[in-house]
Amino acid sequence: MQTRIGFAGLGLMGGRMARHYLEKGFPLTVWNRTPDRCAPLVAAGATQAKTPRELAERSDVVVACVSDPPAVERLVFAEDGLLAAARPGFTYLETSTISPSMARRVDEALRAKGARMLEAPVTGSKMGAEKGTLILMTGGPRALHDELMPVMMAIGSQAIYCGEMGQGSVVKLIGNGLISFMLAGLCEGLVLAKKAGIPQETVLEVVMASGYQSPYFPFKGAAIARRDWDTHFSIDLLVKDQTLALEEGAVHGVPMPGLAAIREVFQSARARGWGAEDIAAVYKVIESASGID
Amino acid sequence: MQTRIGFAGLGLMGGRMARHYLEKGFPLTVWNRTPDRCAPLVAAGATQAKTPRELAERSDVVVACVSDPPAVERLVFAEDGLLAAARPGFTYLETSTISPSMARRVDEALRAKGARMLEAPVTGSKMGAEKGTLILMTGGPRALHDELMPVMMAIGSQAIYCGEMGQGSVVKLIGNGLISFMLAGLCEGLVLAKKAGIPQETVLEVVMASGYQSPYFPFKGAAIARRDWDTHFSIDLLVKDQTLALEEGAVHGVPMPGLAAIREVFQSARARGWGAEDIAAVYKVIESASGID
Amino acid sequence: MQTRIGFAGLGLMGGRMARHYLEKGFPLTVWNRTPDRCAPLVAAGATQAKTPRELAERSDVVVACVSDPPAVERLVFAEDGLLAAARPGFTYLETSTISPSMARRVDEALRAKGARMLEAPVTGSKMGAEKGTLILMTGGPRALHDELMPVMMAIGSQAIYCGEMGQGSVVKLIGNGLISFMLAGLCEGLVLAKKAGIPQETVLEVVMASGYQSPYFPFKGAAIARRDWDTHFSIDLLVKDQTLALEEGAVHGVPMPGLAAIREVFQSARARGWGAEDIAAVYKVIESASGID
Amino acid sequence: MQTRIGFAGLGLMGGRMARHYLEKGFPLTVWNRTPDRCAPLVAAGATQAKTPRELAERSDVVVACVSDPPAVERLVFAEDGLLAAARPGFTYLETSTISPSMARRVDEALRAKGARMLEAPVTGSKMGAEKGTLILMTGGPRALHDELMPVMMAIGSQAIYCGEMGQGSVVKLIGNGLISFMLAGLCEGLVLAKKAGIPQETVLEVVMASGYQSPYFPFKGAAIARRDWDTHFSIDLLVKDQTLALEEGAVHGVPMPGLAAIREVFQSARARGWGAEDIAAVYKVIESASGID
Repeated sequence: MQTRIGFAGLGLMGGRMARHYLEKGFPLTVWNRTPDRCAPLVAAGATQAKTPRELAERSDVVVACVSDPPAVERLVFAEDGLLAAARPGFTYLETSTISPSMARRVDEALRAKGARMLEAPVTGSKMGAEKGTLILMTGGPRALHDELMPVMMAIGSQAIYCGEMGQGSVVKLIGNGLISFMLAGLCEGLVLAKKAGIPQETVLEVVMASGYQSPYFPFKGAAIARRDWDTHFSIDLLVKDQTLALEEGAVHGVPMPGLAAIREVFQSARARGWGAEDIAAVYKVIESASGID
Repeated sequence: MQTRIGFAGLGLMGGRMARHYLEKGFPLTVWNRTPDRCAPLVAAGATQAKTPRELAERSDVVVACVSDPPAVERLVFAEDGLLAAARPGFTYLETSTISPSMARRVDEALRAKGARMLEAPVTGSKMGAEKGTLILMTGGPRALHDELMPVMMAIGSQAIYCGEMGQGSVVKLIGNGLISFMLAGLCEGLVLAKKAGIPQETVLEVVMASGYQSPYFPFKGAAIARRDWDTHFSIDLLVKDQTLALEEGAVHGVPMPGLAAIREVFQSARARGWGAEDIAAVYKVIESASGID
Repeated sequence: MQTRIGFAGLGLMGGRMARHYLEKGFPLTVWNRTPDRCAPLVAAGATQAKTPRELAERSDVVVACVSDPPAVERLVFAEDGLLAAARPGFTYLETSTISPSMARRVDEALRAKGARMLEAPVTGSKMGAEKGTLILMTGGPRALHDELMPVMMAIGSQAIYCGEMGQGSVVKLIGNGLISFMLAGLCEGLVLAKKAGIPQETVLEVVMASGYQSPYFPFKGAAIARRDWDTHFSIDLLVKDQTLALEEGAVHGVPMPGLAAIREVFQSARARGWGAEDIAAVYKVIESASGID
Repeated sequence: MQTRIGFAGLGLMGGRMARHYLEKGFPLTVWNRTPDRCAPLVAAGATQAKTPRELAERSDVVVACVSDPPAVERLVFAEDGLLAAARPGFTYLETSTISPSMARRVDEALRAKGARMLEAPVTGSKMGAEKGTLILMTGGPRALHDELMPVMMAIGSQAIYCGEMGQGSVVKLIGNGLISFMLAGLCEGLVLAKKAGIPQETVLEVVMASGYQSPYFPFKGAAIARRDWDTHFSIDLLVKDQTLALEEGAVHGVPMPGLAAIREVFQSARARGWGAEDIAAVYKVIESASGID
């Protein structure tokens, strides 16, 4: 019998991820804080739960993809939260990027009721969610990772086991730290090119032809070139992750001078009201600091 | 008739680059500050010049690949420098990474004697030099870029025209800035993984599977994992380029908070005596700042 | 009748502050997490409370000086915490440096029981506590600030009203941010002097003779010169405050690139095991990054 | 017989400094790149020289106070520069802030002609120049420092011997680095106060009452409060000094992460066109990065 999937959080990422379960024949129940977002999936065959608790009751595995720690707090620990329906045999797959300490806290609460949890933050952006080619970074029991592979491969192309609960989140934070470096470096370079009278396309051409390349650069470079800040991954969410990464640095004793400097640049984007725009919009901060208005 | 090539600077990069001219049948004369380095190429059929001036006299095009501005200064402007043999029809192809202002100064001096110059700093590291797959970023007259394509394609796989004299150097500095960001981000992440008890291989596996990837990461990541600081590109040279990039930022009015923070991390590597090691050795600075000895 | 004072937290600062109440004739009850620390004050005439609750029961005003947010959490909200004895007429004077949001949370809990709170973080270091010359930065009702002046002037020489609950803490965090800048700047300068062969005393002499001066510099400069890391204010506590300041920056939308860079230098001191030493010990981080061992 | 003074450079600082020589009865000759600036001093009794060479010919000691290295270059090494009149018995007192390497280069050229040099960069700003209370940081022969005390005490209140040629400049750069930290810290704090709804005057009151204080803070704080960017010391000049300090850090192997971060904030002020304004105007950069327009 097919695993009954519950999906919580139908935002930019989650909405696209949940659809794969329907397409691959999993019985699917959905829940979202603002219930309207459930409509397209219900129209396509999903059942709608009124509360996270009901979602958990109707599912063997709840896959969650929500935006930030308070949203996880509400989802799990509220009176009508899924913890209320946790039981032996119930499994929680957390794909949101949260702090390692929060992952451990949720895990403990679930285990106290005999349920199980695997953290599996994802990378791949809106497009990876759409195509089902996300990469999942898992933390928790190795055996649970193996058992959940079919559930994970419905939305992703690869699941990499990172270690115990919390370590999947750390790897995700490291990855988003890396993105922050790459994007900040690209933006400083593109503004320098602009002010030095060099076409930004030339810089991107060189980057892509060389060892400097990354799949990331042509994608974000082109967005910057046409000043398209349509959100694939928002500045607000990336700053949240940068902040969590710096906190992990503090916990484990790792000074991160590069990331600290870069986070303040992104903070400026938030302070100026661009927090909901795509992370590429950090380019505007460097431009503005350079006197381009 | 084949273009007579003169090659100046037979270091880590230049020695490998010069050999391609022999292999592709160009008449080749070579010069190096320490003459011993010429021996293998002479054994393979090259002629050795005693001075840069003689090198220029024997060549239609002198290709230079030296380490820093003082080396260019000596090569071009010394009493026995190649400027002394500059003449109409003589061409200077500068593949070293120098400052845009120095490129312009050399260009002016050569043009005053009727000679021509194209700047063409390269990227591709030791391996690209070996295989003849360097990428060249050119600055100078567009027509000269076109004319020199055969000379450039002997050592590289692509030559991208960046604009007037000095702009090729700016693009190169932007590229090496980008490398600095990528490497600093990787090192901060790998030290965090280590202190959080996560295998660094796992981080590298995730990076390579995802949109975070770059050809750069597995190469440098593996070197770091086995603590192999064998020099492909030295910290001393990268710091030189970071400094030039920050100077261009100052000239053109572009604050570069990320690069400025990162440069100081690399400076620490120099201060500790690791300047001649590969740029991957900057990893040791982050480790040490984290209390790992 | 004299106000009955309860004092919670007899550490480096609190032990010295509490003594002034005895000396000035206030009836004094004391409590400390590790009860031994109460002995000298009890010997001098104070009463010892077994719990924060008992402390509150025996006092009109409880003055708290504890080390960090978890310590305040325990003091106020534990089952035997002082909230359990909060009542109309009871007043809580918080002199610890905590986050503005925590100050507001404690205030709400106390007001719900009819009690009142004034936040009054202090500056002046161990010596100011000893001499009773602390400066207090208050937040809360203006009338309460006025009413508590006699209680505050027992330990300080000046109390400056900063605004509503939380704003006293923000001003304190700004002040400790400023100290961080001054100390980091002094250390970078002193290491540069050392490596340039200039006596550090000469730098300090110039600083003190000029507009560069601050009471802070000769004090910390002399400690650095004799490598005396005896703790007046620990690195751990300053990093806590720097982190809170950066969080306030994030809350209010103020990028703080200088403080962010400086915090990572102090983080390195913690990572290396120097967190309990005086903030002057951050000097060792710069020395080490410069290759001085 | 009185020492004949020549004064070169009658800008913001130099014009005020030169006047003291007249007032104290020294025979005074003056030179300035734009000759008009000499008029008030000539009206007061000074002689005007047409060239630096003539200035040197007419003087025993030339005191120079010019804005940057190119200005020193022109003053000393031009065909009609003062080197042309250098001779045994002639002395050059350099009060400009230049790089240590330039100080050594000028010194060597003068010594080659039997002349002598003392570097003596000053601190004290426009007001110190006006009142004759500058602090001088000298480098060069100790005996020459002693001999020139009367000449230095005409414009300053203290001259501190720092060591050999170049070390006076290093101490000056350290001092201006310190100013950079103090001002950046003050600005980050004042913007945070503003966005947190706290009167900036309250922050300044606390700073001045406490160990955080410095003569610098009320002065610059008040200027910021009334948005008065009238130039006492320009951003352009401070950035020049920050850059020289970072270069000395690179020469001597001292990473300066704090100063590097802070310099980029000041660079932004230059990029936005505020380079000629007072250094307090860097406040506007932090405000703007915080979304205040």
